[in-house]
Amino acid sequence: MSIEKIEKTENQLLDEAQLSLNLIEAQYFLKNTRDQKNAKSLVILVNGIELAGKGESVKQLREWVDPRYLRVKADAPNIFKQNQTFWQPYAPFIPAEGQIMVMFGNWYSDLLITALHVSKPLDETLFDAYVEDMRSFEQDLKNNHVDVVKVWFDLSWKSLQKRLDNMKPSEVHWHKLHGLDWRNKKQYDNVQKLRQRFTDDWTVIDCEDEKLRDQQFAQHILRALEHCPEHLSQNKTKWKQATVPEPLLAPANKAVNQENYKAEFKKLSLKVAEALRFDDRKAIIVFEGMDAAGKGGAIKRIVKNLDPREYDIHTIAAPEKYELRHPYLWRFWTKLQTDEDITIFDRSWYGRVLVERVEGFANEVEWQRAYEEINRFENDLVNSQTVVIKFWLAISKDEQEVRFKAREETPHKRFKITADDWRNREKWDGYLDAAADMFEQTSTVHAPWHIIATNDKYMARLEVLRTILKQLSAD
Amino acid sequence: MSIEKIEKTENQLLDEAQLSLNLIEAQYFLKNTRDQKNAKSLVILVNGIELAGKGESVKQLREWVDPRYLRVKADAPNIFKQNQTFWQPYAPFIPAEGQIMVMFGNWYSDLLITALHVSKPLDETLFDAYVEDMRSFEQDLKNNHVDVVKVWFDLSWKSLQKRLDNMKPSEVHWHKLHGLDWRNKKQYDNVQKLRQRFTDDWTVIDCEDEKLRDQQFAQHILRALEHCPEHLSQNKTKWKQATVPEPLLAPANKAVNQENYKAEFKKLSLKVAEALRFDDRKAIIVFEGMDAAGKGGAIKRIVKNLDPREYDIHTIAAPEKYELRHPYLWRFWTKLQTDEDITIFDRSWYGRVLVERVEGFANEVEWQRAYEEINRFENDLVNSQTVVIKFWLAISKDEQEVRFKAREETPHKRFKITADDWRNREKWDGYLDAAADMFEQTSTVHAPWHIIATNDKYMARLEVLRTILKQLSAD
Repeated sequence: MSIEKIEKTENQLLDEAQLSLNLIEAQYFLKNTRDQKNAKSLVILVNGIELAGKGESVKQLREWVDPRYLRVKADAPNIFKQNQTFWQPYAPFIPAEGQIMVMFGNWYSDLLITALHVSKPLDETLFDAYVEDMRSFEQDLKNNHVDVVKVWFDLSWKSLQKRLDNMKPSEVHWHKLHGLDWRNKKQYDNVQKLRQRFTDDWTVIDCEDEKLRDQQFAQHILRALEHCPEHLSQNKTKWKQATVPEPLLAPANKAVNQENYKAEFKKLSLKVAEALRFDDRKAIIVFEGMDAAGKGGAIKRIVKNLDPREYDIHTIAAPEKYELRHPYLWRFWTKLQTDEDITIFDRSWYGRVLVERVEGFANEVEWQRAYEEINRFENDLVNSQTVVIKFWLAISKDEQEVRFKAREETPHKRFKITADDWRNREKWDGYLDAAADMFEQTSTVHAPWHIIATNDKYMARLEVLRTILKQLSAD
Repeated sequence: MSIEKIEKTENQLLDEAQLSLNLIEAQYFLKNTRDQKNAKSLVILVNGIELAGKGESVKQLREWVDPRYLRVKADAPNIFKQNQTFWQPYAPFIPAEGQIMVMFGNWYSDLLITALHVSKPLDETLFDAYVEDMRSFEQDLKNNHVDVVKVWFDLSWKSLQKRLDNMKPSEVHWHKLHGLDWRNKKQYDNVQKLRQRFTDDWTVIDCEDEKLRDQQFAQHILRALEHCPEHLSQNKTKWKQATVPEPLLAPANKAVNQENYKAEFKKLSLKVAEALRFDDRKAIIVFEGMDAAGKGGAIKRIVKNLDPREYDIHTIAAPEKYELRHPYLWRFWTKLQTDEDITIFDRSWYGRVLVERVEGFANEVEWQRAYEEINRFENDLVNSQTVVIKFWLAISKDEQEVRFKAREETPHKRFKITADDWRNREKWDGYLDAAADMFEQTSTVHAPWHIIATNDKYMARLEVLRTILKQLSAD
């Protein structure tokens, strides 16, 4: 969002009935964009100086609009946790298309409280890095049709002191002062100094005059509600297709003999269980690859020596309709809410640039944008004490056919094969192209791809285990 | 479920490969029931004596099945919270059709820890009341196609002591002893005595022999997976329709003059805000009634003097597809997860016996069963320090027509009217019948219905406020 200034007209009070009418119309307009070409949702981040009146302004707004279609989420600010990204606590509340959510507690309030409260305060570089990361996250939200409006409710030191003097005891209930001492001029100045490091793309409202404050806020929200451009579907520049790497075109056929396999597997699988269990970081292990490449079998071998309570496996299928009303990554953000230490994904967010690209479920703009979104997503995880280990299981087209036929003929495997699998096989080359681009764009230093040849599935299982050990000890 | 005993055959060890094959087939069979006539999901509650080996048996099961389609949820037991029903912490993890969920931590582990740990232990009557309530909840789950399997892993005092003696330090990590002293014979006896108050409809596995234990458990799960009867849709006995009460057939037209309204409203709305705010209990306020009866207006007046952070409003529309794969009440169980003190429902779970009955979305068996399910649901809430206040806003058919036309002609109201509203109007008498049955079946002592005449909407708003005050002070 470009820097927004309160325009002159907003310094005049509008007729309240008219403002309310406009807001309700805009609210229903937004609500009705759901499942339409210009669908969007709106997140309103509300921060500011204590007693400036952000609560009152939201209350007034909720009186002017239809309160049923304006949700409010209020959290006390929390100091950042080392093993949690800044967006994790809030992801479940990112509104779906057609919805509006006001967030009193949000990543900026957490940032401020972290910067002000920890014994070792954030240095400016780290603070600014957080701000930059937050802005990227918000840009990703906007690209995925979640508009983000940020409003800072400002108040001068003098007025704040006056309001503290006049505070009624009954109001104290709502003005939790969040552990900050607002009688301390140095702390006030510090808040102002810190917030100026991020509020240049915010709407800053001077809250001296209460009526004006409420109207400025409401008018700003009104403009945000009314702004619903159609979604882009084509990029101007032509996509440059990466070359399909050799290990995908012709996966190695190196085999291991059964005896060696058994001994080696036993040793490795114990090591992997220990390594995963005793690593201080969380681990996310991602499997992608053609059907029948052996994802299920590899997963089974990873968890062999783990307790069932130690890990979680997510098998990713097509998104549900309600998930489609959220940014693409939302269903993965919300799957990472728990404190689970080991999470395995049988297919993953890479569906965006694989099946969705090949089948046309994601348009050109969407899948081409997804690489960066995914890199940022994984980077945030890695920065939050998480190891992200990504596998592509590479099978040859011939070997796939052999396995498909075997599945059809084996009782306990015939459930694994469907007509879809044969159909996907026809798009083999499309998937190889998509995989090639994926490696090129998302094999990062912090979360590299590992291509594992799986024509010999025993060899592949050993390789997967070895790779996990290697990445865990390398980082 | 009737009392199940381990059958003789289960004392013989089956061929493991065959057992695994059967399990995987049954697992895929269950998975493929999704969206079918015999759809179901399976919850496996796993409790028992420490070191009996429930973790090991689940681990072995997860090796025999496809681990991707057997989720495991493990929570340390929690002492019951006063303002939370026993099912609230677990509701989000009740599996959807086609899914299997093993719950290590569950309502029974919470019950045991509560009974054993609080300074004032649960007396037997209360303990038994909890057990009865839990069984009713499980019966509701089963009726709604969530099969519940309960397995108690038992171990004699002697064997337990021997296993504690032999415990390797590396195992301690996984055998959190949950604050109980398993070296204390009195405590062991106490656990046995308590669990015998609820395990007569459980499968109790003697865990002396580990191989037998794992097989008995797996074979029991196999039988549960294979059992998928078609869902009932018709009851044998004919439903006895209640008489439509007079206040619905001819709502009062008593009006209030504008001046009196304003003064009275101001007074009442402040009182309601204070009463809701300072009540120690949570409040749930439910609005039902014909379209245009004034639900939105009434809600707006209730929240008038509340801070937007104090309350939450849920507007209930048709369920999403993923919600339909859960028991009907599930989407309401999960909406009550937060610590929100005041929750308002604009339409509610009563849709089951109103729109779903009238439109035929719920079959006869489903809507006729729903009254009891709802009563139990509300009763659980009331017993968890929650006030449930239920309003039916009664409008006459003529007045509805006047309001529909006004909505069509008023800019900021025209969004509120759709073709659906006119269609619903044609089913007016069906809705009255449904409402009549609803009052008769669900107007309980702990959660009574309040019928409010709304032909004069100002009068209605005052009445709603007065009724809230009355119910809050009455309880």
